[in-house]
Amino acid sequence: MVKKINHIGVAVTSIAEALPFYRDQLGMVYEGSEEVADQQVRVAFLAVGESRIELLEPTSETSPVARFLAKSGPGMHHIAYEVDDIVAYLEQLRGAGVRLIDEQPRRGAHNTRIAFIHPKSSGGVLTEICQAGDSGAEATH
Amino acid sequence: MVKKINHIGVAVTSIAEALPFYRDQLGMVYEGSEEVADQQVRVAFLAVGESRIELLEPTSETSPVARFLAKSGPGMHHIAYEVDDIVAYLEQLRGAGVRLIDEQPRRGAHNTRIAFIHPKSSGGVLTEICQAGDSGAEATH
Repeated sequence: MVKKINHIGVAVTSIAEALPFYRDQLGMVYEGSEEVADQQVRVAFLAVGESRIELLEPTSETSPVARFLAKSGPGMHHIAYEVDDIVAYLEQLRGAGVRLIDEQPRRGAHNTRIAFIHPKSSGGVLTEICQAGDSGAEATH
Repeated sequence: MVKKINHIGVAVTSIAEALPFYRDQLGMVYEGSEEVADQQVRVAFLAVGESRIELLEPTSETSPVARFLAKSGPGMHHIAYEVDDIVAYLEQLRGAGVRLIDEQPRRGAHNTRIAFIHPKSSGGVLTEICQAGDSGAEATH
């Protein structure tokens, strides 16, 4: 089952504008940024307890995050839960009749393996399942 | 500064319908429900790591959560960060020019003390600051 909230994805129009609130006013540790090419986003990571806030800034107008911003404005985009074995867990969800966007895990930021559950199966909340990358990957950000 | 994500508030039309996904499919521990009269919501608590998911079901049509559901549909409603001393922390936020919805802390579920930051100051994300209740309060749910 899920172990913890790995991160909350927050859609922003500009990381530069959003960062000071999280880093300076909430006091989270800024861990750096990276581009996730296949999602057409730039992601900034901020640590809070055992979790992270991930600020998501679209790098193109066709990015899913750009479409989210156009429809809903800036705000919480998705919630990601961490599991130990994503392949086994997705199999278990499928067995329980849960609809998945990603039938197989794909690469996320930080060399994680991720898959999204279909919002129809998660009450409208875009829900990601992720398995942490190997420890070497943690050194890349 | 903030210590951890205390909880994510998720607006739902029905706790009874939303609960199985979190409890049975994500495997969170259901900790019970309570009514928060001044917010006109019923809240169900589910533990995940050091945090909780709080499912928010409106108990009247004039509840802020009912208005959220009417406008946006079910989904993530707010994020709550825990601090050790909410009075001192709100003072610090005010000093930094952050707009607050609640100038003074009020009572939340679980005997916590809570205050909301104005979305204008938090990039559109409804953000709650909370201080845990005393340990006796934990026994009430």
